Order: sequence, then C-alpha cells, then structure tokens
Amino acid sequence: MMDHSFIEKLQAIVGKENVDATKAGRLVYSYDATPGFQSMPDAVAAPRNTREVSEIVQLCQEYKIPIVPRGSGTNLCAGTTPSEGGLVLLFKHMNKILDLDKENLTITVQPGVITQDLIQHVEKEGLFYPPDPSSMKISTIGGNINENSGGLRGLKYGVTRDYVLGLEAVMANGDIIRTGGKLAKDVAGYDLTRLFVGSEGTLSIITEAILKLIPIPQSKKTMLALYQDMEAAARSVSSIISKQIIPATLEFLDQPTLKVVEDFAKIGLPTDVKAVLLIEQDGPEELVERDIKLMMDICLQEDAVSVEMAKTESEAEALRTARRSALSALARLKPTTILEDATVPRSQISNMVMAINEIGEKYKLNICTFGHAGDGNLHPTVPTDARNHEEMERVESAFAEIFAKAIELGGTITGEHGVGMMKAPYLEWKLGKEGIAAMKAIKGALDPSNILNPGKVFAKESRKRVVVSR
Amino acid sequence: MMDHSFIEKLQAIVGKENVDATKAGRLVYSYDATPGFQSMPDAVAAPRNTREVSEIVQLCQEYKIPIVPRGSGTNLCAGTTPSEGGLVLLFKHMNKILDLDKENLTITVQPGVITQDLIQHVEKEGLFYPPDPSSMKISTIGGNINENSGGLRGLKYGVTRDYVLGLEAVMANGDIIRTGGKLAKDVAGYDLTRLFVGSEGTLSIITEAILKLIPIPQSKKTMLALYQDMEAAARSVSSIISKQIIPATLEFLDQPTLKVVEDFAKIGLPTDVKAVLLIEQDGPEELVERDIKLMMDICLQEDAVSVEMAKTESEAEALRTARRSALSALARLKPTTILEDATVPRSQISNMVMAINEIGEKYKLNICTFGHAGDGNLHPTVPTDARNHEEMERVESAFAEIFAKAIELGGTITGEHGVGMMKAPYLEWKLGKEGIAAMKAIKGALDPSNILNPGKVFAKESRKRVVVSR
Repeated sequence: MMDHSFIEKLQAIVGKENVDATKAGRLVYSYDATPGFQSMPDAVAAPRNTREVSEIVQLCQEYKIPIVPRGSGTNLCAGTTPSEGGLVLLFKHMNKILDLDKENLTITVQPGVITQDLIQHVEKEGLFYPPDPSSMKISTIGGNINENSGGLRGLKYGVTRDYVLGLEAVMANGDIIRTGGKLAKDVAGYDLTRLFVGSEGTLSIITEAILKLIPIPQSKKTMLALYQDMEAAARSVSSIISKQIIPATLEFLDQPTLKVVEDFAKIGLPTDVKAVLLIEQDGPEELVERDIKLMMDICLQEDAVSVEMAKTESEAEALRTARRSALSALARLKPTTILEDATVPRSQISNMVMAINEIGEKYKLNICTFGHAGDGNLHPTVPTDARNHEEMERVESAFAEIFAKAIELGGTITGEHGVGMMKAPYLEWKLGKEGIAAMKAIKGALDPSNILNPGKVFAKESRKRVVVSR
Repeated sequence: MMDHSFIEKLQAIVGKENVDATKAGRLVYSYDATPGFQSMPDAVAAPRNTREVSEIVQLCQEYKIPIVPRGSGTNLCAGTTPSEGGLVLLFKHMNKILDLDKENLTITVQPGVITQDLIQHVEKEGLFYPPDPSSMKISTIGGNINENSGGLRGLKYGVTRDYVLGLEAVMANGDIIRTGGKLAKDVAGYDLTRLFVGSEGTLSIITEAILKLIPIPQSKKTMLALYQDMEAAARSVSSIISKQIIPATLEFLDQPTLKVVEDFAKIGLPTDVKAVLLIEQDGPEELVERDIKLMMDICLQEDAVSVEMAKTESEAEALRTARRSALSALARLKPTTILEDATVPRSQISNMVMAINEIGEKYKLNICTFGHAGDGNLHPTVPTDARNHEEMERVESAFAEIFAKAIELGGTITGEHGVGMMKAPYLEWKLGKEGIAAMKAIKGALDPSNILNPGKVFAKESRKRVVVSR
C-alpha cells in the first residue's frame, strides 16, 4: 500500500484530477494486451509536462515507488503490467505534435500522440513516417519508442529506432536530458537515443521525441501470391531478395490464419491454399510497375498457383487491413490468444515455419502463423484458454521450443514485441549470461534503486534451455 | 613503465612476434591523424583472434593497464592516442572477410578489414555498403564502427551505425558477448549494438561485425553547381530537400577550399566562384535523370551562376576524388591542419557558414569550409602551425566559438569525427551535466577500472561555455 503522504505530494505535483487511486481506476491499468499477466498498481497519474514527470520521478525515488510508463498498453510482452505495483504514468495530456519541420524533414512530438494520427498528419504534407505496427490505430509513439516497434513496412524502411533522431528523457534521479537533435549525424558521446529506444521504460521516461520523416512514395501497388506449398512461398521470399528487390511489404499468412482472417474480414481471401504472400512495392510509378512485374514472375517460377494484383487502392487497402486484423481475428476463436514473434534470418523462414508446424503437431496445438516474411519476423499464434492449465502448459512448452529453434537458426526470441515480463525468462538463451550481465550493469548504473518499470527485461530466474528433440 | 611479467604474459598469449615494446615500435602508435596529440604507449600487441583479445583484456584488468584498440588511426578526434600509456591493440591479423551472405544481404567481417576493400568486395557481387568516410582507402571497419563514421553518402544512406546489425565484442572483464545477428529486427534486450557503435573503444573491444548490405544502385550521375554567393548555395540545399529530393551526395566547398583542392588535384575545378555544390544522385536510370534535371533547375533558380553535369564516369570520379582529397590538399598548406566537424540542422547551413566566416575574420584566421551540406555536417578547417602558440590560441578560441554557435543553432560539436580527447572538453556544452552524468554512469558500469581507452569522451575538466559576442 502506498503511503498517504505520497498520494498527497503526487496530487500537489499534477493536480488532484490527475491522480487516481480508486480500485476501479487502478484495475483498468492492471493489465495490458498480453494475456496471462495482471497486477494492480497502487495509483495512476497523468502528468501534464516534463517538469511534472521529473518531479514525480524524484518523489518516487524518495519513497522507492516503482513507476510504469504506459501508452495505450497494446504491447504483447507484458511490458506495461505493473508487476511490482507502484505508479502507472499515463501520457494522455502529453499528446501534442509540437513541430513539423519541412525543411529538416522532422516532426517533434510528445509521447502520447497516437501513431496513426502522426502518420496521417505528416501524409497531409506529402511526408512519410514508415513504422506502422499493426496496433497503430491505438498505439502511442511513446509506446512505439519504448518497444522499438516494427510493422509491415520494416523490410524496406526499417523500424521505429531508425526514425528517432533525438529524445527528451527523464532519468531515474529526475534529471531531464536531451539526446540527439534535428541532425542527420551526431556522434557527441554515447548513442543514448538508440539505447533508450526499445528499453521498455526501464532506463528513462521518454517525454519528447524528434522523429525523422522521408518523402512520401509517389505510388504503390499491392499483389497477392497463392501457394499450395509453404516451402514455395518461403523460396519466393528468398528469391525476391536475392534478386535485389526490396519490396515495401512482404507478408506471409498460412492457411489456418487465412481462414480466420477471411471469416473476420470477409473480403474474398482465398482459403483453399496453404499460404499467401501479400506483397507491396512503393516508389516512382515506373519502378513500382517494374518490381511488381518481376516479383509476379518470381512467384510463378517458385510455384505460386496464382498471382494477382489489387485492381484498386480500396482493394489493396482491404488486403492490408485484413492482414493487420490477423490478431483481432484470431482472438475471436478462443478466450486466450498467445501471439509470439520469434525471428530468424530471412533465409531460414522456410525452416522456421516447418519447425513451428512440427512443434504444433508434437504438442497437439493449432498454431496459426503469419508475419513479416521479408524480415524473417514470424508471429506463430495459439488460440487457447488460460483456464485450461493442461493446455497452457503445452502452449508454454511449444513456445519454449520455438524460441530455442529460432536461436538455433541464428535468430532471436523477439523481433518487434519486446521482452517485458513475458520473454524475460528466455532472454539468456539469446544473450548468454555475459550479455545479460552487460545489460544489467547498464540498468543498475542508470536506475540503481530499480524504480523504472521493474520486473521487465530481466527475469528473477532464467529458464533452463530445453534440448530440442525431434 | 610496464611490469616485465606483464610483457611476458602478453607474449605468451599472442606470441613474441606480436608484441612490440621497443621505443621505435611504440613511437609509431603514439599519435593518430589528429594534430597536437601525442603520448607514448608502453607496448603494442596484435592479437590473432577473439580469444586472445579476451585473454589480453583479462591480463590488462589484472595489471590495470589501459588498452587502446586501434585501426589505421585515421580518426580526427585523438580517439586512438594512448593518452594514459598502456597497450595499443592492433587488428592487422584480424582482417578477414568471414562471410558474404547474399540471401540475407549481410557481410561478416573482422575489425581489421580496410573499408574500401570491403566496399569493392561487395560491389563485385552487385551489393552496396554505403558508408564511405573520406579516409576509406586506409581506414578499417573496426575504426569506422568505433567512431560511427559518416561519409559523402550519409544524407541518403545513413552512417555506419545504420549498417551494423550485430557485433561480437570483448567486455572489460574479458567476457565475449554477441549482439544482434543477421536480423532485420531484434529487440531482445537493450540495443548494445548501437550503444557500442560510436563508443570509441571505451565500452568494449569489437572483434567481429555483421554488416547490412543493400542492392547496388543501377546508375549514378554527378553534377556541379557554381555560386558567387554562399547563401545561394545554402538556399539550393534547403530547396532541394524541401522539394523532397534526397540526393546520394550533396557536398559543399567554399572558395578557399576550391583553390587548394584544384591546386592539388588539377582537374579543372572552377576557382573564381565563391562556392560549389557537388551533387550526385543514384538509383534507377529514369529516376536519376529526373532528379538531376530537377536539381539543376532548382540550383539555377537559386542563383547558381552555372550548373554542369559530369560527362563521363571518369570525370565524375575525378570530382569525387577531389572532394575526398580536401583534407590532404589543405594539409599541404601549413605544417598543422585543424579540421572540425560542427554539425547543424540542414536549414541552418547558411547561418552556420556565415558565422564561421565572421569568426574567422574576428580571429584573423583563414578558415576553409567544406563538407556534407545535405547533412548539415560542415568541416571548417584551419591550416596553421602548432609551433606558433599565439596563432594556436586564436585557432582554439575560434573553434570554441564555432562549437558554441553550432549548439545555439540546434546542432552538435561533432557530426562524424567523434569526441576522443579533442572534443571531450566541449561535450558538456552539448549534453549538459545531466547528459554527461548518464554517459559516465554507463562507462563506469561496463568498465569500472577504466582500462578501455581511458581519457576519451570524458574530459577531466569541461570548458567553460564562452559567451558568443558578435
């Protein structure tokens, strides 16, 4: 329980109306989009500016109260679950676009801005902010930065990290620092900007960001390639890239996912094929035409049973929306949806998908797989029921094997979702004891009392590495 | 002086032939490309593999001997001067290209590979490694990573950091860790990859790197725009970018630089104009044609007195080579050449160049300015003589004012050269006490006995901020 004097001091900083310590108010922020994790915070506060954030951090430091910064809570790694109680920090008041600089091609924003609002805002000016996580309609930029979110355009355009030029951040001691700037190049000291991106609120609290924009591509085309053979789809991906075409989007959906998505979106997706690739190219018209034609040929050569181009932009948009809705569609099947994002080198996609299917059979689970094939970033997903403990154990064992396999193939346990609490026990498999030690040293140095989002990234105990036997 | 037992143990690790403690041998590594900094190391060693690096680090830890990892020493920030003595680590044996992976578009290299060798190696396979520091003929990839080197193609393609996907590094305690992988996306824990890039050998010793490659642009065109008015050149830069054209290269040379470069390269550069822009675009042929035409029009609209296109690739190559030779050309003028790289937001280029000229007049110095205009990354350069103490004091005061002005304009004290010893006293101007404290905490956590390249990045005493009066 929180000391009453803490609440009073907190109210003095942000105003009474911006502190909620009621049970109902706290319950709302006791979980995020990750199934199976819930923990009550002791209070919720919504600061109005950076100075207030700094004062709150100093107050929490004084009382040793954990702080969990939270955007819209759409993360899938239990990154914003207040696992050790404490204070949830909301950015609903710090949600302004501060500056769109067309000469330097930058936008300066507060963390509470909704990703899609930012994207639409810059597109009106003929500019482009590529990172587009599937949750972009509700996710915030602050959340995207903390998780280093990816999206469908990552293959060609990179992820959130590649668009963060500078940050304002509050450190665990209340210091307010600025990193980077409206600068294409800056090597003045360590790259705190990129260290903080993806650090899940465990190293600092981000209060402002300068983001890089690029010119908006002049045109875009969308195509669908259908396969009766998973391997053929994977071969198409490798073949496209090794022919040096980098499409804007190169998404994969397997048959179980296709069926569920079509049932949800009803846009006429084929459900009688084993896999589809959703491929987009953008850029100057001539180039897009050329690349799409080349990719259609490649897919047919690699045994696609059919390739078709979206005839209109609304048809293309329907396909993209359907793909983005995969999680929502799958979530309708059963009470609990476990979605992962094991990632492998692109050349290992086929091996990884086969391994996922074998693991699914071994544990008698219906694993639906979709994801960013061009990035090697797959989302094996299990619709299940958290109340069925026996099944949940099988799910957990299956994912442990999937992680182990991804690492064996030169991959990682998470491509874009983050570690949070969810994957903390597996982090050592990827990094080794030595890698964990280096990261813990940084955490300890920047947040010695461990008040910034404690319980995330680092597990109290690491999982023993399973021996993958098949 | 070094303990004799240390040398013996060192010899046992790397072999007698790979340790040099002679005065002549040490003298060679007592300085780098930065004028005015020299300090004798106690020994020089050339490990043959990562295990040997790890053993050396453990040995140095035992004896508390500083280690200075060094590539070709082309850095301009006194980043590899053994300021506190100790051991210089050479990578002449660790200079292999380990793997070119065409399916994943990656190359895996040891740190001692020469930048240009790597570039040529991948170009033979139709692939492209964009970072191209002017020193690339002799610089090493390890050095580029430690300094986060830029180059002429940074505007469109980014800097070294943007191409490092994974690292193998030896920590201060001898631990060998691996970060990232052949992965487009990886958010498993903190981004140590990017933290180490640009950390100047102060956080770890890099022993292997996985670098990202991209398809090589199909064609390239080069043009030159001549100006009788500095401001018109700067306006052209802004106008090109705000019309959403991102050229591959957008370089600026002022008249004093032009004269010196022409005298050196003798390729018929105009020396009767106040400034030139060297502009290149690459990509598909149609697009390059279109962009070059648009940029020619823009430059003429912004009062270029003439624009001309390189007629042949050899003419274009001569122009690029001339630009790259600017430092060598300037270095012939006087015994000492001080070259800086204050960087500002692109929109402030014109203000910055004017300020540099005013500062030059104030301190009665002949400052030649050239650089990456598209990045806002300028290289004001003063040919001087280190033995002329009175002039050197004026040079130092002038650069202090240049740094202060860059920061005032939203810029930074170094865009691509790094901090090293040279700019350490000024780092606080950019970062504030709080930013320095955060970086020092990280350094202290990862290298508690301060044996990794000590004396770099952090100054014993920061410079007082001058009040810029004009």
